[in-house]
Amino acid sequence: MSEKQKIVLAYSGGLDTSVIVKWLQETYDYEVVTFTADIGQGEEVEPARAKAEALGVKEIFIEDLREEFAKDYVFPMFRANAIYEGEYLLGTSIARPLIAKRMVEIAAKVGAGAISHGATGKGNDQVRFELGAYALMPGLKVVAPWREWDLNSRELLMQYCAEHNIPVEMKRGKKSPYSMDANLLHISYEGGNLEDPWWEPEEDIWRWSVSPEEAPNAPTYVTLSYEKGDVIAIDGEACSAATVMERLNELGGANGIGRLDIVENRYVGMKSRGCYETPAGTIMLKAHRAIESLTLDREAAHLKDELMPRYAKLIYNGYWWSPEREALQAAIDSTQQYVNGEVRLKLYKGSVSVVGRRSEQSLFDEKIATFEADEGAYDQKDAEGFIKLNALRLKISAAKGRSHS
Amino acid sequence: MSEKQKIVLAYSGGLDTSVIVKWLQETYDYEVVTFTADIGQGEEVEPARAKAEALGVKEIFIEDLREEFAKDYVFPMFRANAIYEGEYLLGTSIARPLIAKRMVEIAAKVGAGAISHGATGKGNDQVRFELGAYALMPGLKVVAPWREWDLNSRELLMQYCAEHNIPVEMKRGKKSPYSMDANLLHISYEGGNLEDPWWEPEEDIWRWSVSPEEAPNAPTYVTLSYEKGDVIAIDGEACSAATVMERLNELGGANGIGRLDIVENRYVGMKSRGCYETPAGTIMLKAHRAIESLTLDREAAHLKDELMPRYAKLIYNGYWWSPEREALQAAIDSTQQYVNGEVRLKLYKGSVSVVGRRSEQSLFDEKIATFEADEGAYDQKDAEGFIKLNALRLKISAAKGRSHS
Amino acid sequence: MSEKQKIVLAYSGGLDTSVIVKWLQETYDYEVVTFTADIGQGEEVEPARAKAEALGVKEIFIEDLREEFAKDYVFPMFRANAIYEGEYLLGTSIARPLIAKRMVEIAAKVGAGAISHGATGKGNDQVRFELGAYALMPGLKVVAPWREWDLNSRELLMQYCAEHNIPVEMKRGKKSPYSMDANLLHISYEGGNLEDPWWEPEEDIWRWSVSPEEAPNAPTYVTLSYEKGDVIAIDGEACSAATVMERLNELGGANGIGRLDIVENRYVGMKSRGCYETPAGTIMLKAHRAIESLTLDREAAHLKDELMPRYAKLIYNGYWWSPEREALQAAIDSTQQYVNGEVRLKLYKGSVSVVGRRSEQSLFDEKIATFEADEGAYDQKDAEGFIKLNALRLKISAAKGRSHS
Amino acid sequence: MSEKQKIVLAYSGGLDTSVIVKWLQETYDYEVVTFTADIGQGEEVEPARAKAEALGVKEIFIEDLREEFAKDYVFPMFRANAIYEGEYLLGTSIARPLIAKRMVEIAAKVGAGAISHGATGKGNDQVRFELGAYALMPGLKVVAPWREWDLNSRELLMQYCAEHNIPVEMKRGKKSPYSMDANLLHISYEGGNLEDPWWEPEEDIWRWSVSPEEAPNAPTYVTLSYEKGDVIAIDGEACSAATVMERLNELGGANGIGRLDIVENRYVGMKSRGCYETPAGTIMLKAHRAIESLTLDREAAHLKDELMPRYAKLIYNGYWWSPEREALQAAIDSTQQYVNGEVRLKLYKGSVSVVGRRSEQSLFDEKIATFEADEGAYDQKDAEGFIKLNALRLKISAAKGRSHS
Repeated sequence: MSEKQKIVLAYSGGLDTSVIVKWLQETYDYEVVTFTADIGQGEEVEPARAKAEALGVKEIFIEDLREEFAKDYVFPMFRANAIYEGEYLLGTSIARPLIAKRMVEIAAKVGAGAISHGATGKGNDQVRFELGAYALMPGLKVVAPWREWDLNSRELLMQYCAEHNIPVEMKRGKKSPYSMDANLLHISYEGGNLEDPWWEPEEDIWRWSVSPEEAPNAPTYVTLSYEKGDVIAIDGEACSAATVMERLNELGGANGIGRLDIVENRYVGMKSRGCYETPAGTIMLKAHRAIESLTLDREAAHLKDELMPRYAKLIYNGYWWSPEREALQAAIDSTQQYVNGEVRLKLYKGSVSVVGRRSEQSLFDEKIATFEADEGAYDQKDAEGFIKLNALRLKISAAKGRSHS
Repeated sequence: MSEKQKIVLAYSGGLDTSVIVKWLQETYDYEVVTFTADIGQGEEVEPARAKAEALGVKEIFIEDLREEFAKDYVFPMFRANAIYEGEYLLGTSIARPLIAKRMVEIAAKVGAGAISHGATGKGNDQVRFELGAYALMPGLKVVAPWREWDLNSRELLMQYCAEHNIPVEMKRGKKSPYSMDANLLHISYEGGNLEDPWWEPEEDIWRWSVSPEEAPNAPTYVTLSYEKGDVIAIDGEACSAATVMERLNELGGANGIGRLDIVENRYVGMKSRGCYETPAGTIMLKAHRAIESLTLDREAAHLKDELMPRYAKLIYNGYWWSPEREALQAAIDSTQQYVNGEVRLKLYKGSVSVVGRRSEQSLFDEKIATFEADEGAYDQKDAEGFIKLNALRLKISAAKGRSHS
Repeated sequence: MSEKQKIVLAYSGGLDTSVIVKWLQETYDYEVVTFTADIGQGEEVEPARAKAEALGVKEIFIEDLREEFAKDYVFPMFRANAIYEGEYLLGTSIARPLIAKRMVEIAAKVGAGAISHGATGKGNDQVRFELGAYALMPGLKVVAPWREWDLNSRELLMQYCAEHNIPVEMKRGKKSPYSMDANLLHISYEGGNLEDPWWEPEEDIWRWSVSPEEAPNAPTYVTLSYEKGDVIAIDGEACSAATVMERLNELGGANGIGRLDIVENRYVGMKSRGCYETPAGTIMLKAHRAIESLTLDREAAHLKDELMPRYAKLIYNGYWWSPEREALQAAIDSTQQYVNGEVRLKLYKGSVSVVGRRSEQSLFDEKIATFEADEGAYDQKDAEGFIKLNALRLKISAAKGRSHS
Repeated sequence: MSEKQKIVLAYSGGLDTSVIVKWLQETYDYEVVTFTADIGQGEEVEPARAKAEALGVKEIFIEDLREEFAKDYVFPMFRANAIYEGEYLLGTSIARPLIAKRMVEIAAKVGAGAISHGATGKGNDQVRFELGAYALMPGLKVVAPWREWDLNSRELLMQYCAEHNIPVEMKRGKKSPYSMDANLLHISYEGGNLEDPWWEPEEDIWRWSVSPEEAPNAPTYVTLSYEKGDVIAIDGEACSAATVMERLNELGGANGIGRLDIVENRYVGMKSRGCYETPAGTIMLKAHRAIESLTLDREAAHLKDELMPRYAKLIYNGYWWSPEREALQAAIDSTQQYVNGEVRLKLYKGSVSVVGRRSEQSLFDEKIATFEADEGAYDQKDAEGFIKLNALRLKISAAKGRSHS
């Protein structure tokens, strides 16, 4: 029986993390425990078992976390209408806290004092993994090979594989020139030609969606049902959280929805260019805002809007497991009690439009809103006092001679 | 020479404000001074002169305010990426402060102590007009006929016209069932069937844009040039502010861009449903965010994002002429100094995509961002200390036994 | 049996509200139901019974709400460290929601469709009462006599009393020239000479505290124990919420603590000058911040600090019973779970100083904080990476030639 | 002529930085250039010259920066009413950006490519110095000896002095057990017994103020005059910015004002306990709020209050030289245009009270605020409409059956 120190590695089964298994074994004499999760990335996770075994790994964890991911991470985040920097739906960011949590739990279970991951020293993911891990198990040691080793090019990695008998698959034709990441919420592309922000990505970069040009010529309509701010049914059919994501990814992808091409600000300090496909997320954001527009009180909605950028930033930066994110979540969730009802959407060649919303908890009051006679539901004369008192401070300022810039 | 008290009326030349002219003359014995402005609503303003004269108006002001509107109101607002409630581009809201300002200036010029407008007592516009007027001329009296009279249906208005010999035009075929408002930034529709938020508007409601389905099958590309956060050229050709709006409205409208169908929260307390077409604004918002993504510092950008909902709310609620809006504008403008460069956009069947952005003031540093070897521009080992110190408070909390919800 | 419409009046037993009883009976033929609450104003409430009876009131509610007031209103507010405009501890504001709630509950019980109060049309209290009442019982009618009648001077009120046989007490020597309000949290003074903001109040305005000059020459030390952000014991002795307030008011008042003289901005639009005595509140604010300083995570604390002004404004403006206040409270309360421990304070001639704080949930880690050798608890080299990555965006900006204003 | 690389050192003339001079010369063979500034720390700076010369320094910069410090750093910060974590007046934080700026300017002048300072790797000051330096001269190298060397105790430092012939003064009797820092705004104490947050500091820790107990038995009154938010005169006598600080430090210190004992959250992640004396700052904060209470518009004031914690945090964390601080400053400064007038204060045994404020730009309108008859300046009936429309959304929610938590 081994008396080596154990380390839990977030293992994809791919080239990089396979090299890391070997490197951890050789460099630090660790007993490597692998953890591979299905969070909807669209690749089989079971093959990781044989690969890990081939590398001499004895404890192998392979888990399907799709429901947990959708229900406890993606859905709470969408209650906040979270968008980072006006555009990014946080697809990569929101997966990391769950991975961190499971790694820490596995470490506790197998008696490991360290974890490792394959994220580079330039990106956000290292931060997200490690902040999560430290917040959940403070004594943990983190080994981040990309910050330590000198295998910083594909050639050096291949050479390392050759020297250490790590089998290299030549899968799916030519290697993508982009760094990719995928889960139920999105697939992302970075690197390669994208490092020129003036360069328009060629069509074949995109994997989850058809181009708007090739999407159907007729629109697709879909109705989402909400309960307490979460989608619970599609076109009247009840769905689990993960199923909601999967179906909407299909519907959205088929209609060219959810492509995004941005320059974003990383937490580690530089700007980077990324392309994303987020079909389900793009639909859900639009729909959630629509159901809120009918059921949420105005000032609760405005409070949420003002808190949102901060909430999104916390998730982007890796602070899911923090008291400040939890405090904001408590505020957000307290507003979702009556966010129930249905939203009807039109999907067409890249765009999502809301074409109807209804709710038993609707705060829309036709009688009051109407421009027609309202039988006294609203007394227009009240507006005069409302305006006059709101203007009072401005009038006093002006009367004292203050002018406007 | 008249010794009557004068009142300045925001006069469109349409039925409602023509009735108001007469009503003000009769009810209060006012000498009515009319003010009609071209702010890009797409109708001739000159015909208002003859109509006013026919109503016995002696002082008639007709002005082309399009450049001022675009340059001093729309453009500063777009520097903020302002959106109300996640969707609305504030097309009506932003026109009111300018109208209020000109009415007050005309009142000062002609010696009027009162102003009047045709906005109802249920809407936001009365608030915007009156807050602006009070802030700029605190002693002013405001007469809001819709809050006073009992002509609260079209039939009663028509009857009033008949009784007072006000000519009623039967223009452009059948009367629209919707309440509309237009300017360089948008055209809006409210009322009628729209008062059912589950009802999908029929295609012929829309006036400025073709439907995405009928838009061209090939995308249109356009490049906008920015200087200090404002668009100064389209496809390399320098344009005035109003011209920018007009050209982008054409381009956007032709590609089915800028339609919006929402339920919004009015300042006077109820929810209302509105449809909007904002072609130029939709393009400009996307493009401004893109040029900022390249040229704006991260924390300046995040500060702007956190302030934006509040800024948008101020404009929506009618507080353009307020010290708090001016303070926020000062913050926003201070960030736009280096927001220069070009954004290339693809317009296609209802959607706007950014496909490139470049700038001499770009803060995107390929050498640092690259996943390839960077020759020491960035030391990955720095990330370890960065993460550890950011994690320190979380580690201490966890070490003290605190758990996560 | 009466078939008159009933109205519930917030009745103090004083002159003004006695006149209102009669006025409501006469003007609107209401059956007046009185409600008098002890919220710690320091006057007997039972005498209000005989006075109401003398005015012909048949249903009289007299209640001791001190514990509910302290526990469910004052304490939650102090968890937020709420201060309005940097100075005001919201003593009057926080009492109104409770009064509104009880009035509405009594209205429901006795079958009244209306409520009334004695607040003027210029102040905040009318807003606080009425927003609360409308939020809790939307169909309610509110009668605000001060906004309707013309008894707008003391002389006219006295004359009304004479004409309607309302007995006028000549209590406690000469009438105070100030408008006062008191409850467990504070006593306030407005009006009279205070309307000149340059005028320094004479010593005898103050009723709850001795002057700092006359306070004892030796300091008083007191220790407060906290549990989940609330004070639960004084000097080791467990106290109910109301008892905490009462004891600290005594201790504070005896040491000249809690006087405040400010100009504040009312929600109805004007500035007003007020003097306040808030002995317990002044001590509790200082102590709560101190126990938080030891037990609250940094970012949770900063989030609270940023939300606080908004939370305070909501309470000041009368929005206790609103979804946005409740959302903020959810965020605040979520941070108080570990705010346990003890704070030791020194009270001396008008000032409160914290001289010690300790907690089993303390996050203060002497080993890490020390300037002495720390045996590796903190690696100073981590700071270099921390600083370098935080500086990266600033360095890139500077390298691109941007300068500072 | 030397061909050595030059480094600019922030040199106090004390033991630590003298050791650093030698250590930089020996360890890196640097040509050390010293920079010593008088920012009001209350010690002569000129003696640093001889000490530096004795250490072989050839280029010595000694500067009096008191006016610049007060005028361009302290005063702008006080316009914001900045307080960190509800208590701390940022005395140390605000001095660092100026030192960083001068070091960088001297580096540019003498052709140095590096700077060094004596701040430890556990504190905030290293961050403030270095962020400032990187933001102003991005290519600069920073050498932080405390993060590198192993001289991490007083004994080792003394031994180093002995070995390298560095003269050690035995000044002012026994060495203080506390780590101190002083400038025009404050003097701070950390370390030693203070590392126990339950321990009450003994009286002789305090250097700038008498104890409240020993302060005069009669109050001192002082009047400050403001122009655009800055103090320009004391008791009617015009003063430069630095003189304002010096005089108020004397007045405050003599009356026991400005002592503070807190646990604060450092940017590098731990909590620390500090004691501070900030006599002038404590007076100025109170006075500035008072003059603003009279002259600042309500919503501008509230906006400032909401932005303040963020602004204070930026300064605390070292981001003075950042676009986000500059954007906030632009907003703050835009509100100060009319912040003119006088504030009269009472200083007495540790507390500052405002007893009067007046201004030609006062927005306090006695006619409107009065509870007496106001001759129509304010129509109380307006309040009804104001309340009803503000309540509308709450009424609709309640009518739909929503309840309150």
